[in-house]
Amino acid sequence: MPSSAPRLFWEDFPAGQVREFGHMLVTREAVIAFAREFDPQPFHVDEDAARHSLFGRLAASGWHTCAMAMRMMCDAYLLDAASLGSPGLENLKWHKPVFPGDTLSVRLSVLEARPMASRPAVGLIRSSWEVFNQHRDLVLSMEGWGMFKRRAQAAQS
Amino acid sequence: MPSSAPRLFWEDFPAGQVREFGHMLVTREAVIAFAREFDPQPFHVDEDAARHSLFGRLAASGWHTCAMAMRMMCDAYLLDAASLGSPGLENLKWHKPVFPGDTLSVRLSVLEARPMASRPAVGLIRSSWEVFNQHRDLVLSMEGWGMFKRRAQAAQS
Repeated sequence: MPSSAPRLFWEDFPAGQVREFGHMLVTREAVIAFAREFDPQPFHVDEDAARHSLFGRLAASGWHTCAMAMRMMCDAYLLDAASLGSPGLENLKWHKPVFPGDTLSVRLSVLEARPMASRPAVGLIRSSWEVFNQHRDLVLSMEGWGMFKRRAQAAQS
Repeated sequence: MPSSAPRLFWEDFPAGQVREFGHMLVTREAVIAFAREFDPQPFHVDEDAARHSLFGRLAASGWHTCAMAMRMMCDAYLLDAASLGSPGLENLKWHKPVFPGDTLSVRLSVLEARPMASRPAVGLIRSSWEVFNQHRDLVLSMEGWGMFKRRAQAAQS
């Protein structure tokens, strides 16, 4: 990751902005490795069990899909931004299963941007995350909050 | 994980039920390994950068905390249950950072249980997940939906 000064601040994420990015191939190995460590339900680790599940075949843990979306976000812009982390998110929905062989991408839409009342050097951004597979099916959506340094404040400090 | 028939069905998660479980030590190696793969923001992978961040020291990715909670849930009861996965969750909040050396545990409270209107063999459960550290500080909370087979239906099939 970059050790240089961030290029993107709160002001660079105005309401209405839309970013599309990512091209992540989901491998069978990665699906099983994540699930073995964090979510070893049969339909995430075992092909036979998955065939008899609602999914019909081996499917990624929903938490794995979230983590892959996070990685695409880091690579697309977050590692270049004065990010201060996130307090949380809302309305997370796993719309469709993610399968080995799928390729994921992300559309991030800024819904709302406002300064943080209690900390004038920090701005809040509320975004919609939408994750799609290669058929352009929506597989995951959520609305998350992010905290970023404000450019004016960064310049003063 | 068990390949035997599940012991727990939708009927075993009535509204009001509370389960407490888990004792997961968060290691520095695990924090860095998860973050390098999925969330390589400086405060999750680099001690020096973390010291100058809001966290003050190396902190786990919020997604890692979610994944660790999922694992504790699997080990405590989910791998013994006729689980059909989850459609989503609401109101996820990362209340405090999780640090290497912390030990996490979970309190799961069933808020609501109802049959699925469109699929009589399936029941829905809405639960509150609360994740605590060893000081009994709340570090993560959310409300999630889970789908489970109903016992009566399983007995018939």
